[in-house]
Amino acid sequence: MKKVGIIMGSISDLKAVQPAIDLLKELGIEFEAHVYSAHRTPLQAADFSRNARQNGFGAIIAAAGKAAHLAGAIAASTTLPVIGIPVKSSTLDGLDALLSTVQMPSGIPVATVAIDGTYNAAMLAAQIIAVEDEKLAVKLAEMRAAMQDSVLEKDRELQQQL
Amino acid sequence: MKKVGIIMGSISDLKAVQPAIDLLKELGIEFEAHVYSAHRTPLQAADFSRNARQNGFGAIIAAAGKAAHLAGAIAASTTLPVIGIPVKSSTLDGLDALLSTVQMPSGIPVATVAIDGTYNAAMLAAQIIAVEDEKLAVKLAEMRAAMQDSVLEKDRELQQQL
Amino acid sequence: MKKVGIIMGSISDLKAVQPAIDLLKELGIEFEAHVYSAHRTPLQAADFSRNARQNGFGAIIAAAGKAAHLAGAIAASTTLPVIGIPVKSSTLDGLDALLSTVQMPSGIPVATVAIDGTYNAAMLAAQIIAVEDEKLAVKLAEMRAAMQDSVLEKDRELQQQL
Amino acid sequence: MKKVGIIMGSISDLKAVQPAIDLLKELGIEFEAHVYSAHRTPLQAADFSRNARQNGFGAIIAAAGKAAHLAGAIAASTTLPVIGIPVKSSTLDGLDALLSTVQMPSGIPVATVAIDGTYNAAMLAAQIIAVEDEKLAVKLAEMRAAMQDSVLEKDRELQQQL
Amino acid sequence: MKKVGIIMGSISDLKAVQPAIDLLKELGIEFEAHVYSAHRTPLQAADFSRNARQNGFGAIIAAAGKAAHLAGAIAASTTLPVIGIPVKSSTLDGLDALLSTVQMPSGIPVATVAIDGTYNAAMLAAQIIAVEDEKLAVKLAEMRAAMQDSVLEKDRELQQQL
Amino acid sequence: MKKVGIIMGSISDLKAVQPAIDLLKELGIEFEAHVYSAHRTPLQAADFSRNARQNGFGAIIAAAGKAAHLAGAIAASTTLPVIGIPVKSSTLDGLDALLSTVQMPSGIPVATVAIDGTYNAAMLAAQIIAVEDEKLAVKLAEMRAAMQDSVLEKDRELQQQL
Amino acid sequence: MKKVGIIMGSISDLKAVQPAIDLLKELGIEFEAHVYSAHRTPLQAADFSRNARQNGFGAIIAAAGKAAHLAGAIAASTTLPVIGIPVKSSTLDGLDALLSTVQMPSGIPVATVAIDGTYNAAMLAAQIIAVEDEKLAVKLAEMRAAMQDSVLEKDRELQQQL
Amino acid sequence: MKKVGIIMGSISDLKAVQPAIDLLKELGIEFEAHVYSAHRTPLQAADFSRNARQNGFGAIIAAAGKAAHLAGAIAASTTLPVIGIPVKSSTLDGLDALLSTVQMPSGIPVATVAIDGTYNAAMLAAQIIAVEDEKLAVKLAEMRAAMQDSVLEKDRELQQQL
Repeated sequence: MKKVGIIMGSISDLKAVQPAIDLLKELGIEFEAHVYSAHRTPLQAADFSRNARQNGFGAIIAAAGKAAHLAGAIAASTTLPVIGIPVKSSTLDGLDALLSTVQMPSGIPVATVAIDGTYNAAMLAAQIIAVEDEKLAVKLAEMRAAMQDSVLEKDRELQQQL
Repeated sequence: MKKVGIIMGSISDLKAVQPAIDLLKELGIEFEAHVYSAHRTPLQAADFSRNARQNGFGAIIAAAGKAAHLAGAIAASTTLPVIGIPVKSSTLDGLDALLSTVQMPSGIPVATVAIDGTYNAAMLAAQIIAVEDEKLAVKLAEMRAAMQDSVLEKDRELQQQL
Repeated sequence: MKKVGIIMGSISDLKAVQPAIDLLKELGIEFEAHVYSAHRTPLQAADFSRNARQNGFGAIIAAAGKAAHLAGAIAASTTLPVIGIPVKSSTLDGLDALLSTVQMPSGIPVATVAIDGTYNAAMLAAQIIAVEDEKLAVKLAEMRAAMQDSVLEKDRELQQQL
Repeated sequence: MKKVGIIMGSISDLKAVQPAIDLLKELGIEFEAHVYSAHRTPLQAADFSRNARQNGFGAIIAAAGKAAHLAGAIAASTTLPVIGIPVKSSTLDGLDALLSTVQMPSGIPVATVAIDGTYNAAMLAAQIIAVEDEKLAVKLAEMRAAMQDSVLEKDRELQQQL
Repeated sequence: MKKVGIIMGSISDLKAVQPAIDLLKELGIEFEAHVYSAHRTPLQAADFSRNARQNGFGAIIAAAGKAAHLAGAIAASTTLPVIGIPVKSSTLDGLDALLSTVQMPSGIPVATVAIDGTYNAAMLAAQIIAVEDEKLAVKLAEMRAAMQDSVLEKDRELQQQL
Repeated sequence: MKKVGIIMGSISDLKAVQPAIDLLKELGIEFEAHVYSAHRTPLQAADFSRNARQNGFGAIIAAAGKAAHLAGAIAASTTLPVIGIPVKSSTLDGLDALLSTVQMPSGIPVATVAIDGTYNAAMLAAQIIAVEDEKLAVKLAEMRAAMQDSVLEKDRELQQQL
Repeated sequence: MKKVGIIMGSISDLKAVQPAIDLLKELGIEFEAHVYSAHRTPLQAADFSRNARQNGFGAIIAAAGKAAHLAGAIAASTTLPVIGIPVKSSTLDGLDALLSTVQMPSGIPVATVAIDGTYNAAMLAAQIIAVEDEKLAVKLAEMRAAMQDSVLEKDRELQQQL
Repeated sequence: MKKVGIIMGSISDLKAVQPAIDLLKELGIEFEAHVYSAHRTPLQAADFSRNARQNGFGAIIAAAGKAAHLAGAIAASTTLPVIGIPVKSSTLDGLDALLSTVQMPSGIPVATVAIDGTYNAAMLAAQIIAVEDEKLAVKLAEMRAAMQDSVLEKDRELQQQL
């Protein structure tokens, strides 16, 4: 099974990234996590990205705030799907990071999820790997069904409360 | 090879969606395109989505404007990767469509590209399929190299102009 | 008298929805409240909506945050008036939910109230039912008069304070 | 059958309001249209609103741009449902009108539709009247079905084009 | 000397309005403060405004939040200068109140100050009255000079700290 | 009667400022217009402002776009009421000019009108001068009445069209 | 004298960049212009930047639109002052490019000018070089004086027109 | 070596400005810090600016919030590079200060850094001075290398944690 790479721009993003790590573990997807900054360690970020396909990665998640160039910088050096998490880390509610992540130029897409949408970034990575991995696809379908059951269970509880 | 689905909310989006169709053709990726609206034909949109995996799809692209619910509605009925194109179709410069597409709740991601980023949506779909398709991966790498050569060629031309 | 439906996307919205429940009770309007998610339980949300008119409902209130598709998804399956409450539940101050709720395509309106405007959503539902219910109309007029008296009373108190 | 009132802040809004007039005519709903400004003719606007219920109105549509106070001013003098259309008429893409219309204080809701959403305002008015008018409800259901058929027809045409 | 009117939309705005009251007292300008709501007591707000000139007022300050129609509603019934204070009272940081206050239609201006700019609203009212009141003009010039001295004093303190 | 000063940041603003000039002429209010830039001729702008009161001015209108500092720079050197017109002159729809004009610090207010609200700036200046000028106040009341009549006339025309 | 580098993300930006080229020529400042893309030719962009100081550059101007990473990518590989021009090239009026350019992380500043502020980018580069180049400083002072004279000339012309 | 000027609009900005002071001290760059307000002490701000070059300054940093005119006012009286720090000090998350600082008119640039980007403002000032100061350039390169090492060290720690 292909691995998932998780790149965060600063170690201070680790807590924000944790839900992605937890979901990948829960789904039994192998991953590597790294602290690489687009601006402070551009070479290391590019090296990781350039070699990611041959190193067995199937998708790379990048989390960054403010002028969030990290996902784009990763995407510039690979043709693997790159998933960008805009992190709220300035006064601007994460809108700066969202626009910096999603408004990529033609030819270099970044698959952007919601502001601080770490869990969904890992879910999307899992969906990408599950395209050709039937066992993982089944797991994802089961999680979705469980999600649905949980909502319906809450609805039943609500009916008794009212 | 897995197919790519392209769903547009209205036939008036066909012109906007054309660059995606062209790129998929250029890359030799099979696709189906449909006009399904999240609000006018919710059942058909959901049916397509629910059956997409068993019908041989590997990714679904959804393009919609304003309160752009289409990508989210598609994502609600499949665990395949769903790629959302926020289309500028109101007075608000596409910001409404961007937020409606990207700010998905936990568990149901939409891989969002730039406003009117149709070409990149198809590129991302191709990247997803190329994760397990080496021949396609080679094509994508060649396209990327050509893109780079084209920029460098423009730089050389510029040097002679100045 | 027609009933009012209240749909919330998550049980965590119950507290936000409470002022609507309280107002409907105060006005003696029958209601049902449900937890249905546009993305996690799309079928149940659509079922409720499709059958709402024949089940005696006169209006449906839907509360959701972020990419707030719930009101639109409900509106897609009924021609009853649907009232959308954009709930602030992301970093973006509720602007994402407001645009996702109000910018509906032609033919499928959502009657949108203010961000977190739960009380007003119930008031609007009551106003809709009161169109053909004179007794309720009188109650609403009395509430409005009381509201006015309360402002004038505050003004009198202020004059003594100054 | 209850009538629908349409108030526009300026005669220059007539063209913008025309789709609402056309839809009400198509549905056989009686209406009155007036030019009243919240700021230039506040008394006339309030008079119309105060007497609307006893004059046989079931809903009032108000269209205004910029600091769009008209719908709110109408809502201040009636407990009928008031539908606000934020009209783009400044440099700000209609965002000023949207916020001025939707962010109403507690107790005085305005049912807000999309920026320039004139057609949907009339549709919402029709839905409100149809709550207790079965014949109109049937017409609305037929229009919805026709809308769906039109999308599916476009999809069939697209299949032949591709 | 002409009086200044201060209208607040809700008694909960009194604390926000206090700096205006304090400044007017400090400058010896007579004032009246009232709680009148554009939506809950439209008639009283209009009555106050219509009679303000003959009652000896020279300027009216209006403070309101969200869809802040109050200043505009006051301005609709008088040709006295009306000063609008957009109050932050929703999730939207006061941007809704700012646009609702400042974007007035042609012919009915509202002199808008900063979000929560209560002190400046009273200062502007004082400046308006000082146009024809030399003694007050002298006081304002003295306050301005004191303001300047205070900055320069802080600068001197800073030099010693560094 | 006090004069009104009109300062524009660039001669290219003359056309935008024309409605203010026309209204002041129509009302018989004396005025001076100048091209002074906050950044290119800061000394001249400050000189005009510092001497404005003793030179017989009662209000100063300043029109500027982008980082619109002009009104604030004028306000820094006088205690006369300063009216700011945020001019749309960048890609940002005038929002930059609006915020740069209205968000003034404590003690130095700028009476801000709508984006490109030139006519209203002159109306506000006239209202300020009319506080102590009964003849002008009567003219303003007549203009307001004419404005109202014009709306009612349009309403009568509309009734015949429908 | 140090040279100025001008990097544009695409040859299509040449026209936008022309005012910078013209100003540098007018001031007699040597420059090089290149087409390098942060995403399509990341290595070439980084190479240019890494060697810029030893190649005799004193400042680098970078112009890019949308998710404008170019200036940041250049700044990541040099400690020379990097000037970023946010170019309007999407539906979002250049706000995306502005935030992507200016919101840089700690340690890697980008000196950002206005959206499409090409002329000012070159002026800032000239100011930086003039810090230690008295002759250039004199030229800049003369240009500033000419700018002032031109405004005052326009003011004189205006006085004759009125 | 040229000195750096730091101007803050209010002594309350001192804490925000401290990281700039600390960095300049760490780099051994001489500086002066002053409290001058564009609106409360316009003459002193202009005087400082007009004389800055002959007083040995090489760059001036200006920090201000809301309608942040300070950097622009400084830039109007000098041709030295002026660095603007937009300070978040209103309800608007610093967006008002950012636009007021960066959107300068042609000919008078302000080198704008991120909202509250005080540290980077000093870094940019140091980069400007280092253009002709090789020893300082070496220090900056060392700091950059240390920054990179710190990220890589964090990455190594992360590998052991996982």
